[in-house]
Amino acid sequence: MAFTGLVGASDPDILFDYIVPPNVTIVDGNFFTYTKIRGFFDVQNSTDTKSMAASMVEFPALNGQSVSFSILQLAPGGVSAPHTRPHATGLFLVLAGQFEVGFVDTSNKLYTQTLETGDMFIFPKGLVHYQYNPDMKKPAVGVAGFGSASATVVSVPKTLFETNIEDEVLAKSFKTSVAIIQKLKKGLGSKVLANN
Amino acid sequence: MAFTGLVGASDPDILFDYIVPPNVTIVDGNFFTYTKIRGFFDVQNSTDTKSMAASMVEFPALNGQSVSFSILQLAPGGVSAPHTRPHATGLFLVLAGQFEVGFVDTSNKLYTQTLETGDMFIFPKGLVHYQYNPDMKKPAVGVAGFGSASATVVSVPKTLFETNIEDEVLAKSFKTSVAIIQKLKKGLGSKVLANN
Amino acid sequence: MAFTGLVGASDPDILFDYIVPPNVTIVDGNFFTYTKIRGFFDVQNSTDTKSMAASMVEFPALNGQSVSFSILQLAPGGVSAPHTRPHATGLFLVLAGQFEVGFVDTSNKLYTQTLETGDMFIFPKGLVHYQYNPDMKKPAVGVAGFGSASATVVSVPKTLFETNIEDEVLAKSFKTSVAIIQKLKKGLGSKVLANN
Amino acid sequence: MAFTGLVGASDPDILFDYIVPPNVTIVDGNFFTYTKIRGFFDVQNSTDTKSMAASMVEFPALNGQSVSFSILQLAPGGVSAPHTRPHATGLFLVLAGQFEVGFVDTSNKLYTQTLETGDMFIFPKGLVHYQYNPDMKKPAVGVAGFGSASATVVSVPKTLFETNIEDEVLAKSFKTSVAIIQKLKKGLGSKVLANN
Amino acid sequence: MAFTGLVGASDPDILFDYIVPPNVTIVDGNFFTYTKIRGFFDVQNSTDTKSMAASMVEFPALNGQSVSFSILQLAPGGVSAPHTRPHATGLFLVLAGQFEVGFVDTSNKLYTQTLETGDMFIFPKGLVHYQYNPDMKKPAVGVAGFGSASATVVSVPKTLFETNIEDEVLAKSFKTSVAIIQKLKKGLGSKVLANN
Amino acid sequence: MAFTGLVGASDPDILFDYIVPPNVTIVDGNFFTYTKIRGFFDVQNSTDTKSMAASMVEFPALNGQSVSFSILQLAPGGVSAPHTRPHATGLFLVLAGQFEVGFVDTSNKLYTQTLETGDMFIFPKGLVHYQYNPDMKKPAVGVAGFGSASATVVSVPKTLFETNIEDEVLAKSFKTSVAIIQKLKKGLGSKVLANN
Repeated sequence: MAFTGLVGASDPDILFDYIVPPNVTIVDGNFFTYTKIRGFFDVQNSTDTKSMAASMVEFPALNGQSVSFSILQLAPGGVSAPHTRPHATGLFLVLAGQFEVGFVDTSNKLYTQTLETGDMFIFPKGLVHYQYNPDMKKPAVGVAGFGSASATVVSVPKTLFETNIEDEVLAKSFKTSVAIIQKLKKGLGSKVLANN
Repeated sequence: MAFTGLVGASDPDILFDYIVPPNVTIVDGNFFTYTKIRGFFDVQNSTDTKSMAASMVEFPALNGQSVSFSILQLAPGGVSAPHTRPHATGLFLVLAGQFEVGFVDTSNKLYTQTLETGDMFIFPKGLVHYQYNPDMKKPAVGVAGFGSASATVVSVPKTLFETNIEDEVLAKSFKTSVAIIQKLKKGLGSKVLANN
Repeated sequence: MAFTGLVGASDPDILFDYIVPPNVTIVDGNFFTYTKIRGFFDVQNSTDTKSMAASMVEFPALNGQSVSFSILQLAPGGVSAPHTRPHATGLFLVLAGQFEVGFVDTSNKLYTQTLETGDMFIFPKGLVHYQYNPDMKKPAVGVAGFGSASATVVSVPKTLFETNIEDEVLAKSFKTSVAIIQKLKKGLGSKVLANN
Repeated sequence: MAFTGLVGASDPDILFDYIVPPNVTIVDGNFFTYTKIRGFFDVQNSTDTKSMAASMVEFPALNGQSVSFSILQLAPGGVSAPHTRPHATGLFLVLAGQFEVGFVDTSNKLYTQTLETGDMFIFPKGLVHYQYNPDMKKPAVGVAGFGSASATVVSVPKTLFETNIEDEVLAKSFKTSVAIIQKLKKGLGSKVLANN
Repeated sequence: MAFTGLVGASDPDILFDYIVPPNVTIVDGNFFTYTKIRGFFDVQNSTDTKSMAASMVEFPALNGQSVSFSILQLAPGGVSAPHTRPHATGLFLVLAGQFEVGFVDTSNKLYTQTLETGDMFIFPKGLVHYQYNPDMKKPAVGVAGFGSASATVVSVPKTLFETNIEDEVLAKSFKTSVAIIQKLKKGLGSKVLANN
Repeated sequence: MAFTGLVGASDPDILFDYIVPPNVTIVDGNFFTYTKIRGFFDVQNSTDTKSMAASMVEFPALNGQSVSFSILQLAPGGVSAPHTRPHATGLFLVLAGQFEVGFVDTSNKLYTQTLETGDMFIFPKGLVHYQYNPDMKKPAVGVAGFGSASATVVSVPKTLFETNIEDEVLAKSFKTSVAIIQKLKKGLGSKVLANN
């Protein structure tokens, strides 16, 4: 995601209470309210794997406030593929169901946990992590809080195999054949994964 | 809250993936997990007004991660008295029930909203805000995310009237009599308010 | 105070020596000079309680420099009502007369001091504090330095009782009656307090 | 990589000229000098793919200085597998030979370039990037500068396939079979890739 | 000035209200008070050029608060030689007398001003600046506020000519002879200049 | 160097992957590439003392990335006169030849070193430092990395003696005569020094 402009907003302190975008003319309680997540919590019959973000892109009043949320729902047996958040640690809170989670630190050590409703887990900034719903009958829902208004995501499968990185570079990197790389690319091409 | 030590941890970037306190010897998935909030969500029969924090004091692995949570439950008709968070904006998400919320900016303008389950509202850093449950039958539950691992709170009633600020200074400040100040102090002395 | 624009200036480092506002065409020594405080120090016959700020609003060249001043004069017996500075710690230096000062930390402990001319006192960022001139004959003058170009202020009496927060919410918060709240509101409505 | 201690050093400004570790007793010019990279530039006959870092782990005087280097040498046809730097953008300068480089942004767009000796390229913080030496006869050498004293690295192949993330989670994430995942894990297990 | 310890305190936000040094056991109002400047303002008969700092070295409670002061008194005709503050912009307020001030930006443009009592002037971070008292009869006094608890100073004459930089390097740098350099060194060796 | 605009970019984190200036319409690999340094490394016959920067002024894609480079070549016996970098520590890497380097800390202690090809040396932020090529036959080349996209420079000789600071102020500051100051000014007026 790029920003067209001369200067870059920084997540550290703003000098004002809040920032009003140029196109906003009425600043009242509604400006500070986000309602699009409403209804996400009715997980009774849902079998979707999906995520919704409330960061400064969706909720402009967050600009300069150094905080955002993302809501993740995993279908029974669903997975949020390995991904990183370049700008912020995620603090993940389970709202319904069960999650198997893990992250890998920069010394390549894996940390895992099985979380019940009400539990929290930390995904440190910039580290690869994933979530998995081990329950084959019930969906699972969680909310992640971030210490940045912009919690953009790098999905590892998409980054590697849904862009045009040359097959030969990937094959050498993964010590495998170009044929395997092409097979992976083909499998992934069809469907979007949830990332939270 | 004071910190005894030569240097102060800063919320901006750490140079490591995470920070392990000196007294922690085993760093595995449990270190990054917080389970004390479990059960807070069973609000069926609850009539309590209470809050639980998951900041670096309760959950040491958050140190250096610039994020924390606080869970607030308001009894029917309950209130979280006016308070500020000196270190972080709160992004408040309603998990159950209804909230009337408001904050006052530094130009003394009040912003209010009535929130339904699933809605979010922003309480900008350092500004006085409150939450109120207008439903006289059902409790309300919400979670606030903060872009700091230390989301300490300044409760306005406690700060003013449960410390020993001289009655005369307070009377002059509020343009009222020492008698009224003493009456306010007496009323507050008995009970702790929830703050989230 | 709001800022209309896409991005928010951050108090940490700028990438330039200084920032020139778009409407300024001549950048010479005058741009870096602020003279409006001149004369504030002639306290001989003054009986006013008043304050003057030199922050980036009044003195635009401060933008990006992470520092500002505020000058406070208290009439004999005058008070600067409890207030907080959401963006910066104040380092207060007494230039003339005497001050009784205090602040309350987030554990609700009150710290007080009586200051003579030449003394300094710290009001940590975001904490409620006040100043009082105990001398019933002479005015008192002090200057506060802030580590931010924008040292906006939250006046507690104004925030609570000169905005439209509902009487019932305030009554519940302060464990008092709606009648007392209305009395406080009425008393404050008439006059502006100094805040420094 | 973890840090055992109560507080986390932050890359923003230190309050001192420099920081001396507790075990260092003589602070002279040598403390500020790093000589272990000497000889890395004699690439005439080398056929190794290797990298050397000069960050605060190897060069303690960098602590608090917000800058570090890493030197990368790629054998003819060698690759530095896809990786991210969670703490810092890399500014890469080619010292000898030729590099094909690329990174993928958070909208999954790939940016590539072929670099000659003397050219620079930016790898933004937290984004997956790689380097490849397309010359089958001559090695290539480059230096990356980072705006952090701790430019730790997340190697994607290692993170995914040399840790114990469950095969099933990986298979679901990459839309492939457990058999393919196991094949990838087996291929990678044997050899360390250079990362710069 | 060096700091002996593993980590460096950063001027940005602390996670606590304040920081208590390990050797301090009583934290009351006195901890937040600095009285050593008292008496500096009695400039009636003074003919000294001197400065006093109130930074975290002299006043430990400032640690983590991102603000400090320095008081400067110039004798009639006295000068504070060209110097820089590597950590903070100085906001200079004239308390008594008159000052001629100037700074040079990184494009080598000089900005000057003559300041009267009550005037302020900005010395941007890291830029060389000086103060001069043009009045040959009366001393001048000012206070500088800094947005850092550690406003260390680099005195240009001392740095160049009171250290052991080789005469030849200096002669080449200033396009002059070794004889002139030695003459300058000799003149400066005897006396300490005030810096504010 | 000044910036004309309302807000100041801060070197800490941006909220986006990168920042595109308003006048740039095509963002591809070329945007992230800088080629003007190409050829600087062919030092065989060169006798020039010169430097080239790759900061956000020359290479706009660096805006928000907190890193930049500067390349320095010293002719045999050449010097880079004492200077400071107000925004960033320099990490200096010798690419060819030999350098005598030094910096002075804020306690006026000088740190020196003789560097061979491949060696690194630290010039802490804001401190006066210099480089000298002691070899009277071969040029020397080095690259400095900075943890800021804007590594502006304050050249001490230029700042003092090529601006219009009054001779009398300088004479008093350096404890010398106006005649000596004028002699220094005259010598320097003619030629530009390299600064790296």
